[in-house]
Amino acid sequence: MADSQTVAAYAVHESGGPLEPFTYEAGPLGADEVEIDVLYCGICHSDLSMIENEWGMTQYPLVAGHEVIGRVAAVGSDVESLAEGAVVGLGWHAGYCGHCGSCKTGDQNLCATAQPTIVGHHGGFADTVRAQASSVVAIPDGMDLEAAGPLLCGGITVFNPLVQFDVRPTDAVAVIGIGGLGHLALQFLNAWGCEVTAFTSSPSKQEEALDLGAHKVLSSRDPDAIASAAGTFDFIVSTVNVKLDWNVYVSTLKPKGRLHFVGATLEPLDLGVFPLMLGQRSISGSPVGAPATIEQMLDFAHLHDIKPQVEVFPMSEVNAALGRLKSGEARYRIVLSNV
Amino acid sequence: MADSQTVAAYAVHESGGPLEPFTYEAGPLGADEVEIDVLYCGICHSDLSMIENEWGMTQYPLVAGHEVIGRVAAVGSDVESLAEGAVVGLGWHAGYCGHCGSCKTGDQNLCATAQPTIVGHHGGFADTVRAQASSVVAIPDGMDLEAAGPLLCGGITVFNPLVQFDVRPTDAVAVIGIGGLGHLALQFLNAWGCEVTAFTSSPSKQEEALDLGAHKVLSSRDPDAIASAAGTFDFIVSTVNVKLDWNVYVSTLKPKGRLHFVGATLEPLDLGVFPLMLGQRSISGSPVGAPATIEQMLDFAHLHDIKPQVEVFPMSEVNAALGRLKSGEARYRIVLSNV
Repeated sequence: MADSQTVAAYAVHESGGPLEPFTYEAGPLGADEVEIDVLYCGICHSDLSMIENEWGMTQYPLVAGHEVIGRVAAVGSDVESLAEGAVVGLGWHAGYCGHCGSCKTGDQNLCATAQPTIVGHHGGFADTVRAQASSVVAIPDGMDLEAAGPLLCGGITVFNPLVQFDVRPTDAVAVIGIGGLGHLALQFLNAWGCEVTAFTSSPSKQEEALDLGAHKVLSSRDPDAIASAAGTFDFIVSTVNVKLDWNVYVSTLKPKGRLHFVGATLEPLDLGVFPLMLGQRSISGSPVGAPATIEQMLDFAHLHDIKPQVEVFPMSEVNAALGRLKSGEARYRIVLSNV
Repeated sequence: MADSQTVAAYAVHESGGPLEPFTYEAGPLGADEVEIDVLYCGICHSDLSMIENEWGMTQYPLVAGHEVIGRVAAVGSDVESLAEGAVVGLGWHAGYCGHCGSCKTGDQNLCATAQPTIVGHHGGFADTVRAQASSVVAIPDGMDLEAAGPLLCGGITVFNPLVQFDVRPTDAVAVIGIGGLGHLALQFLNAWGCEVTAFTSSPSKQEEALDLGAHKVLSSRDPDAIASAAGTFDFIVSTVNVKLDWNVYVSTLKPKGRLHFVGATLEPLDLGVFPLMLGQRSISGSPVGAPATIEQMLDFAHLHDIKPQVEVFPMSEVNAALGRLKSGEARYRIVLSNV
């Protein structure tokens, strides 16, 4: 184990700038940390948001990348859960406080002082990346490593609500938006046993949505199609980051139904209270998941052969890869490879 | 049991008009119905909304009143659950379809075709009122009948969410608005074991809120006071029907907390998505409760001596009573009496 480590990465230096080769000294490995040789790193839409400082919290230079699949290269002196050579994954969080109410009750993903992998910390667009061992999970044997990266953020983001809000296999569910998140949600919900409806604005995705696990596809641009689903869903997950007519979607919920947001739409939800009251309906949101849920998600994905559909670029072509993501044409996730 | 029945009631004939003595023929008693001699009838804010056709669904002439305490005068031929002479209560619903998904799973209050007591049906501002036996509950022996009426709508409205959303005695909770609903919510939540905070805009109610069961009172008009509660509540119930800065209240929720609406605020909730996502928070609403929950609520109220604070008017003074309600000065509910 090296006392320090020069990391070869790609960083952006200002909003709108290109990613450029960038090296930094990682310093001594912390006692509770692991160092991971990056094999693959998915690109998440939130990498793009951070690169462009859309959320106003980017610290430049920024090494983005938080869907890491890699091999443990070194472990800190206190780490017992992982050993050198283990194949692991790292997602949105690279560490937790470990002692707040959320951490103590297994909701580390809700820890207010958790360390994001790419906020004030360098991420996975690099040859190596470091993180607290408690935030790093083992990848199940036999998993397709090239495709697995996007599960660490995109996958857990759509899987976690099924656990948190007790979605049942007998539920009728819908997914709004069939992209990076939505194409995973369809697969998870189909394997979960649910009757699955996809809402998409893109006619070209209708057939693909059925292949991915939807039993039915409705156009999110057709008010009549949406209205035809009035009162039919127990659970709807929205993966889009644009404003839709949310009250129409609320009307498609059964009594006690839930409209859940994992897409970071910036405009306020102008929701009427009466439809919530009369039908005892809920609106909610959630971020990624806790490490134990990430492990559960990986096992479930492996068992059911749930796989992100990926387009793979060499790490050196990160700018081209980001351009492809930005074009909206990627089907459905992009992965950078060091292999 | 009479084949028909002339009911002496008070009805309003147009929006804004006074209530006037009104008689109607109730017709033959249905096989599944009971006829109730009205002893007391609470006045709920929704009676006022219906009298003034605020929700656009009033059918005139309207006999309002849906917080009835009375004595069973007659039972239909199929009724086995109640007998003549029983002291009973009738709330917002005077019947359910009995065969929809909600009815079959014990959520009769969410039945889409339930018969409201005062929509297309004459209510309790009268000497008698009729309802399906399935919607009428027995009042526990020894309960103060004069004060019990408001439990049948106001009480169940604030009690039901505690059951539906699994509020725990270890939860820190808040009540927004200390009026007809809120003064009952404080009592229920205190008896439930929770740490209770009251939000009120009225300095004159601060002391009363403490007497009613709040452990702490904060001014809903003081942004600093609200902000001081950031991240502290598991559950907030809003009983008001005005627009507040809901995003500030969301910020007072713990991770996984819930802001729940039982007050029928007409303006849309302009909620930000990020605070919901980052803290895995929920927004929801609910109407009254199912008959089994109403019974549970009555037992709980009786055990813990939870009582609406009422001002009692003779039934003949219904217009004066409504004026008092409208003034906003009633502490806290008004009951009409035939006794």
